[in-house]
Parts: sequence; C-alpha cells; structure tokens
Amino acid sequence: MNHTEDLTRYIAEFVDEMVENGIDNAVISPGSRSTPLAMTMTAHEQLKEWVVIDERSAAFFAQGLAKKTKKPVALVCSSGTAAANYYPAIVEAKQSRVPLLVLTADRPHELRDVGAPQAINQLKMYGDYVKWFHEMALPDSSELMLDYARSKAAQAVDTATRGNPGPVHLNFPFREPLTPDFTLDDVWGKERRGEHFSFVKGKKILAETELEMILAKLSGKKRGLIVCGPQTDEQLADAIFELAEAWRVPVIADPLSQLRTGQQEKIHMIDSYDAFLRDKEIREMLTGDFIIRFGAMPVSKPYLFYLNEQHDAMHFVVETEEGYREPTGKNTFFLHADPQSLCNQLACLAERVDIAEGWLQKWQVMDEIAGSYLTGADQNVITEGTAILSLADKLPDDGVLYSGNSMAIRDVDSFLLQTQKNVDILANRGANGIDGVVSSAAGAAAAGSPVMLVLGDLSFYHDMNGLLAAKHYNLNLTVLLVNNNGGGIFSFLPQASDEKYFEALFGTPLDIDFQHAAALYGADYRLAENHATLEEALEQSRQQAGISIIEVKTDRAQNAAWHREIWDHIIKAIKTHHWQEDSL
Amino acid sequence: MNHTEDLTRYIAEFVDEMVENGIDNAVISPGSRSTPLAMTMTAHEQLKEWVVIDERSAAFFAQGLAKKTKKPVALVCSSGTAAANYYPAIVEAKQSRVPLLVLTADRPHELRDVGAPQAINQLKMYGDYVKWFHEMALPDSSELMLDYARSKAAQAVDTATRGNPGPVHLNFPFREPLTPDFTLDDVWGKERRGEHFSFVKGKKILAETELEMILAKLSGKKRGLIVCGPQTDEQLADAIFELAEAWRVPVIADPLSQLRTGQQEKIHMIDSYDAFLRDKEIREMLTGDFIIRFGAMPVSKPYLFYLNEQHDAMHFVVETEEGYREPTGKNTFFLHADPQSLCNQLACLAERVDIAEGWLQKWQVMDEIAGSYLTGADQNVITEGTAILSLADKLPDDGVLYSGNSMAIRDVDSFLLQTQKNVDILANRGANGIDGVVSSAAGAAAAGSPVMLVLGDLSFYHDMNGLLAAKHYNLNLTVLLVNNNGGGIFSFLPQASDEKYFEALFGTPLDIDFQHAAALYGADYRLAENHATLEEALEQSRQQAGISIIEVKTDRAQNAAWHREIWDHIIKAIKTHHWQEDSL
Repeated sequence: MNHTEDLTRYIAEFVDEMVENGIDNAVISPGSRSTPLAMTMTAHEQLKEWVVIDERSAAFFAQGLAKKTKKPVALVCSSGTAAANYYPAIVEAKQSRVPLLVLTADRPHELRDVGAPQAINQLKMYGDYVKWFHEMALPDSSELMLDYARSKAAQAVDTATRGNPGPVHLNFPFREPLTPDFTLDDVWGKERRGEHFSFVKGKKILAETELEMILAKLSGKKRGLIVCGPQTDEQLADAIFELAEAWRVPVIADPLSQLRTGQQEKIHMIDSYDAFLRDKEIREMLTGDFIIRFGAMPVSKPYLFYLNEQHDAMHFVVETEEGYREPTGKNTFFLHADPQSLCNQLACLAERVDIAEGWLQKWQVMDEIAGSYLTGADQNVITEGTAILSLADKLPDDGVLYSGNSMAIRDVDSFLLQTQKNVDILANRGANGIDGVVSSAAGAAAAGSPVMLVLGDLSFYHDMNGLLAAKHYNLNLTVLLVNNNGGGIFSFLPQASDEKYFEALFGTPLDIDFQHAAALYGADYRLAENHATLEEALEQSRQQAGISIIEVKTDRAQNAAWHREIWDHIIKAIKTHHWQEDSL
Repeated sequence: MNHTEDLTRYIAEFVDEMVENGIDNAVISPGSRSTPLAMTMTAHEQLKEWVVIDERSAAFFAQGLAKKTKKPVALVCSSGTAAANYYPAIVEAKQSRVPLLVLTADRPHELRDVGAPQAINQLKMYGDYVKWFHEMALPDSSELMLDYARSKAAQAVDTATRGNPGPVHLNFPFREPLTPDFTLDDVWGKERRGEHFSFVKGKKILAETELEMILAKLSGKKRGLIVCGPQTDEQLADAIFELAEAWRVPVIADPLSQLRTGQQEKIHMIDSYDAFLRDKEIREMLTGDFIIRFGAMPVSKPYLFYLNEQHDAMHFVVETEEGYREPTGKNTFFLHADPQSLCNQLACLAERVDIAEGWLQKWQVMDEIAGSYLTGADQNVITEGTAILSLADKLPDDGVLYSGNSMAIRDVDSFLLQTQKNVDILANRGANGIDGVVSSAAGAAAAGSPVMLVLGDLSFYHDMNGLLAAKHYNLNLTVLLVNNNGGGIFSFLPQASDEKYFEALFGTPLDIDFQHAAALYGADYRLAENHATLEEALEQSRQQAGISIIEVKTDRAQNAAWHREIWDHIIKAIKTHHWQEDSL
C-alpha cells in the first residue's frame, strides 16, 4: 500500500458508508488540507455538494438544508479558524435538534502544538455542542482500517440522527500529498465490502399502565389545553387536532408548530393568543387545570406570562426522546413518547376526560376577536405587522417561510394566522440568534422549494454573506427585509426611554442602503412603500428563481406604538364582549 | 440592598478595576442581557467603547486593536450564539498571543438547560482557547462580593497579559431588570475602596551559567544565522541588529518581524530569502551551523524547506515566556528569556563566537541579487507582486500595514523589503485564517493611525461586514483589494491541473463586482489598472479619513506563472554569479 492508495480508499469508503446511511448533501468550504474529503465527496455520484465559501454561512446553510429535508447534512472545511466559524450554527443545530456531520480536516500529529501554520487544536473544539466527537486515525487501507472508516461513518450518521438529533464532529488528520487517485480499481469498495452498518430504530410507545398514570393526574381537571410549540413534523398536526376534537380542548399553535398551515380543519386552533394573553385580567379568565405541550416552548412571551401564573395546573411536556424544556420551573410530568402515537392513544381515552362546557368556546371567542383585529389591521399604511399579512397572502404553496428572530418571528406569530397552504414555517429557534438566518433560508431553498425569508435589517446585515450561495446556485429565495434601521425589539425594553445610552448601545442604526447589497449579489430589488407594491413584488418573486429582496422601511418608535395600540384594542374588545355569567 | 443597587455597584466596581488594571477600550455588540456591562462601560469616563454589531467582526476588531496597542481590550456580548461568533477571533488571539477580556452575559442559573430563549451553555464554551474561564457570581453589593468583583477584574486583566498573552473569558449571569442606576452615590466605589490589586512583573533574564551553556553549544560553529519571525515589539530591532553587528551574522527578517521597517541601519538584514531559498542547490550553499530564532516561525515556505535540511545545525528558539514553536521537529534548545535582554547579553559575548569569513557576505550578495530583481520587477503591467511595490512606496509614516493571509502575506514577504518608515506590519498569523482580516485592520485603525490593508478577494468577501465599524467611526482605512476572482494560492497546488475538480472546489470564483460593496459602506472606490493610478489612489487615500477601496484585478493562472518566472530569474542569476571558490 502506498500513501495515495491509503488516502483514497480510506476516505472513499468513509464517504460511501456515510451516503449509504442517509447523507445526500455535503456543504464544502474551500481549503487545501480538506482536499481528500472535498474531492471524494464531489466524485461520489449519489452525493450532492454545495460549495459555500464563508464557513459561518456554510454551517448555517447546512443547518437550513437539514432542517427542511429532515436529513443529516455533511459539512467539510479545512483546518484552523475555518472550523471555528462553524460554531454558531453548531450551537443552533444542537439546541434546535438538527442533525449535522461536521468533518474537519486537520494537520497530522507531528504538526500539532509546534507552531505549524494553520494548525489549531481541533479536538473537542465544539465542547458540549456536539453529541459526539471522534478523532479519526490517519488514512490506512488495511482491511481492519477500512472497516473502521466505514463503521465510524455509520456511527456518525446514526448518532447525529438518533435520540434528539444534533451535530457530531469527526476530525481527520491528513499528511501531504492530499490528492486522491480515483483511477484505482473499486475505489468505493462496493464490490469488495458493501455497506457496513445498517439500523432499524423503534419509537417510544407508552404502556397501558403509563397511560393510566396520566389519566390519574387528569382526574377532576376540567379546563385543559394542548400547546404545540416549535417542531418540524408536519404529520403531527392531524394527530393533535384529532386529540383536540376527541377531548374538546383548545390547541395553542405556535407559528413554528406546523399546525397553522396545511389542509386540516383547524376549528380547535388558537393562534392569536399572543395578543390577548398580554392582559392579566384576561389571563385570569383563562386559568387552566392542565396543559399538555408538544414541541419546544412557544415563541410568545405573553404565553410565558400565562404559563407562569398556572400554579395549580398539571403540566405535561411531551418529548420524543428526552429533554427538560420547561423554563418556568413548574412541577412537570415529562412524557417521553412518540408524539403522534401518544396523541392517538390519548384520543382513545376521551370518555375518561371531562372538559368543562364553555371552556373551548371561551378561547375560541377571544381568538376570533383578536384574529379579526390582527388580520383586519389598517393596510393604508405599511407596518411591520401588516407586511406579514401581505406575506401570508403570497406564500407559495409547498414553499417555505423562513422567519428571522427578534421582531420578525414575533410579527409572524401575531400576523401569520391559519392558512390552508402547505407551507413549512421554519426559524432558528434553538438559540434564537439573529446570525446566520440568510444562510439558513438559502439552505432550505437548496432543498428545492421556493423560500420566503422575513427578517430585520440587523439580522440581514449580519449574514449578507449568505446571499452568495443563493446567487451561485440560483436558488429561489425571496427576502422580505423589514428595515427599521437598527434593533427594533429593544424599543420594547425599559431602557428605550434612556436617551443617553439608547441609540448608541441598543438602537444601533446601520444607515445602510441595501439596494447596493442587492446589486452586489445580483438580486432583484424592490422598495415596497405600500401594500400594493409589496404584494406585486412578492407575487413576482415567487415565480422566478434567484434572489429577490423586497424592502419595507419602518420607524422603530412608531412600530412599538403601533403594536401597543392594536393590543390595546384587542384587549378592550375582549373585555367589553358580552360574556355569559359563568364564563367569567 | 436591592436588586438594582446590587447590579449597579457590582458591575461598576468590576469595570472600574478592569480600567485601573489597564483596559482602555471595550468593543460592545448590542443585546439585551448584556445591558449592565454595556451601559456601565459607556458610563465609565476613562473607557472608550466601540459598538460593533456582528460579533465575529467585533472580536476580530478587538484583536486588531489589542495587537496594535499591545494592551488588552474588553469584549462584551449578549447570551446565545452571539458568544459563539467570537470563537474564530478567540482562536486567533490565543495563537498569536493577543490579550482579550471576553465578557459574556448569560441567563441566570434557573433559566439554564430548561429550553429558555437564547440560553446556551456558555461555561467553558471556548475550550482550550482561553487562558482562563471564570463563571461570575450573581450581582451582589456586599463588601465581600464587591472585593470579589474587583479581584476577578484584576485577575482577568493580569491573566490575559502575563506569560504568553491571550484571551480570558468571564461569564456573567444576570437577572432582570437589567438597567443599572448611575444616580447612586459613589457608583464606582472610588471613595470607599479604590483599586484592589496592583502588580509589578519581572522579566526572564538568563544567568551567567545559562549563557555558558549556550556558548558551549556554539563552540566550533562558524556559520550562524539569526532569524526573526512574526512578533510585535518594534524595540527588538535595535537589539537584534546590534547582536548581528557584534557577531557578524545575517538576520533573516520576516515581514512581520518589525525589522524591515524603521530607522535602524539594516546592513545585516536578509529580506529576499523567500525567493532564493526556493532552490535546493542554493540552500545547500547556505548550510548553517546554528540558528537563533526570535518570534514565531517565519511565513516563508522556502525558509521552512531550508530549515528542514539543517540537520547538523544547533537550533535555538527564544521564547519570552514559554512555547514549543518549532514545527520541523529538530533538536531544539529553547531559551526562555526576554528577547532584548538576551540580545544584549549575547552581544557582549561576541569575542567568544567565531563566525566564518565570507558567510555573512554570501547571504548579502544573494539578498542583493534577489532584492534587485524583486524591486525591479517590470511595472508596465500591474501584478499581485508589483502592486505591493507601489504599496510599499505609499505607506504612511507611523501608520500600519495590515496584511491578509494566503497570497497577500506571501507577496508582502517577497515585495515589501526594507524601508526607513516607521510602519507596523501586522497580520493574523496565529491560525493564518482568511477570516476577520478587514475587522482586524479596522481595529488597528481604531488605535488612531492610518491603516493600509492588503488582501485577496475571498478574504475581503469573508469579512466585508468589518467595513461597517470603519464607516461608523470614520477610521482611516485603505483597502488594497487584490482580486484574482477566487482562491489564488491554490493555483500553486498540484491539484491545479485537475480541471474536473479545480474551479468548483479550489478556484471558487466569486464573480462579484466589489464596487457595490464600496457603495454599501460609503467607501471611496478606485479600480487601479496601472501603477500610476494605483499610486495616485494610495496617495489620496492615506490623506483622508474614511474607507478607500482600491481594487487591482489579476488572473490566477497568470499570477502563478509570473511568480515562477521571477523566481527562476533570481535563481539563475545567483547560480551564475561569480562566486569565489571557497564559498561554494
């Protein structure tokens, strides 16, 4: 065996096994030390490679692609700070349970800790933010070590996808020369060995006795609530609505629950709660006895206020595998079970659950009042809220809405109410960063569907580099850029009134003309000064590939005032509604 | 004591002590959780704050500012992925020994690992890349805890600056409300407590017996070499040249050694070695007996080839404090000593060192031949090399040249030869990344001197976000953008001939018109198609504040060929030089 044969076979079999185990896409950043991985992935016919230059963007791109396809994506970069640039997206992927295979090239052992160029200590460099780290052996094409390479590829994919999915990290030391030789016979080892590890994986199903424990806890509880926070399984909606129908309880549906979109009947769904739960008196009208939550904690802060006040309620949190996602610190009964199966099991127990008359209706009435104010907001002037109404109207069927964090996701929460369209609504809600959002949306678009991205100017600026891949691969990406020239969400904080510090530290106006950013990346650009222009631009953009940037300019202080005014109207309308005695 | 008083006094005394111990600058990224740190730093009158929105840029900005000022800089960000964006610059700072105080705001303990928004595990999140991590206690204004806050601030600054300087990380849990109250009496605790820890710090000076050990190793060695790699102490040049004069040995001076620039007589300096050490025969002519290196390993790859072949030489590596920066793996005698003092001590021992006649001259002759080819390169056509000649000509006295990595630093190495100007030549040579370079240069400019930055298009693209701070603070930053539309350095690799993979994986053309980037950040823009335009643009730019972008467009393949041609000429000229018998 010689060096090049060792290198070629070892990496080829690793890549082949990774593909056999379900990796379809690899996101590669250019570099020299990563040559063996990059060239071999490009040579493998079943693997699609995406070359993304800025590694921070590359990792968010992979995260968006994996989130949309619900399949793990491989990431490849060279040694040094390249690998450190992956960190923000790795943190996000870990927290939002997105599977990634992070493959970093490294200098061999003799070039470590001796001041060699571009050599940094890459072992365990992502700390607790990867589910598994393994330092690969140097390339070797002995039988034993080809089995090893295959087993580690399979283990990596399995670890990334099983339990709560997340990133795993393998570090590859490579000696020069780095170029593989694909003219060798049976490079992929298909004839000699074939795939190495295969898996079947069961789901967690509750036993009869465990269901009885739940029922015992529900005994005498008459006011129940189902809550579905951020989660990406669009099949879950049917099961949840069937459970709600059987039990006659309301379903609080987060914008990222995948419940607000799709063909299902949504009569039990409450989607305007963020507006009316802002009021303490209203929250008191809605005091509950039990809450069963699927998915992560909802985006809505008013919902969190509500939750914090439910001292006497039974709190159930459903986790497909594991987790402690209950930030209120309340007594909690964690249900580790496949959510769909659990819904089906619970629905069958409907006759043993006794929900109060009028409970569902009270939520429905409030939701209807709030919803009609929100969707009926005055559209003569364009606002951060009403822009979302136009966006909702123009969402492409079978497309994706990617939402930025900060104000964007809150406006999506308020104004993107139920629709029959089959749209995935995605966001980076693991760590809620404003970073990497453009790249994540581009990655989602790489899965093949048109993507509409709504985000603020700070978030857009933070990841403008993400537009390069969208341009390079001519992805269908529409950016609705809500430009309030700075950190709009901070206008809702107490320090907004402190003039000495506010603009410099929190307002942070960018004073950037984003038309130049559009020109830089060959994007269509439209400034939408009213709803007609906005809707026309959205309509046009969704029908064409490439990047469209549609900018809406707003004022931070006006925006805060406008939101407060709508909320006040809604709260007043609910309070003055003619409620029947017993429901108050 | 109430919450706001606890918060205010605790953070104010922390910040005050940090300032007392030598922090003059803080780079702050906007966020809510970091409000106590951000507002208090802004309120402290002796601290200058810089608001930089993209945290990746912010950390590189701080790194550039700390590198130029040789003083630690504080970094402040909010919780979540914000902190993860610091990672690339933290890695660079650790490896290039730049002191940083990384201060991250965090959620309090009860909001950790429970799925709370923007809460990630920030403890030890930078792994081995910080010299020290400490989780701060919750704010508390008892006597004991104010002493604690002060002592931790002082410890942090001391740890960042002592030994090999580097980043330290303190994580601050904060509960709401987050706004401090500066109307309290004696907020800074100056009257009640004053500063807490002060330090005097000695230098490592070798004893007589240790010097004798060195002399014993040098016994009979006649062909000696002093090498100075990347280091930032501009005072070291005098001491090294005095030693070289005393011993009559050549000094190989890396472009980042701070030896090539400045008023000193430089007759012992060799600065064109990168060209002539490419040839094996020439390297054999220069076989040495001992090498004493100051600073990190030089940038030059041919120097590394040379070093690898010096099997019989004694290798000395001088480290101010500690380190193993010797990637060739040769037998090495590490000298842990203050470099200036060591030079002075060694110079006094000159009569006990016996250098061969003609040894210094041989290096000088080769250097002169190579230097005349390099500085005399045909300037009718503008090339990546000759652009540096114009740049060298127009460097502002008392300014900074910041060099990008990859091709840029190699061309600076080849073409930026000695000058009397007092210019700092800086680069990110800890991990040699192409990331963060614009921000590092902007950070260096924030120290007050005009900065000229030379870098390639991939590196510029990677960190265009870095221009925002330069625009916002109207820094004097000139960018010489050498645009070869992709990864120019890869054209020197063996895989450059592999057409199937090369352009997609290594060439990676950006196809971007950077004029739009200039417009985006309000920068002056000039395309320099010849040397006259280039020099005029450089001249103009250095005289005005704000960003100037001067673009030179080149062709990757032509560039590789052009470099090879010059090297061939130099090698041929040296070989056909009329050498005296005994020097061959």
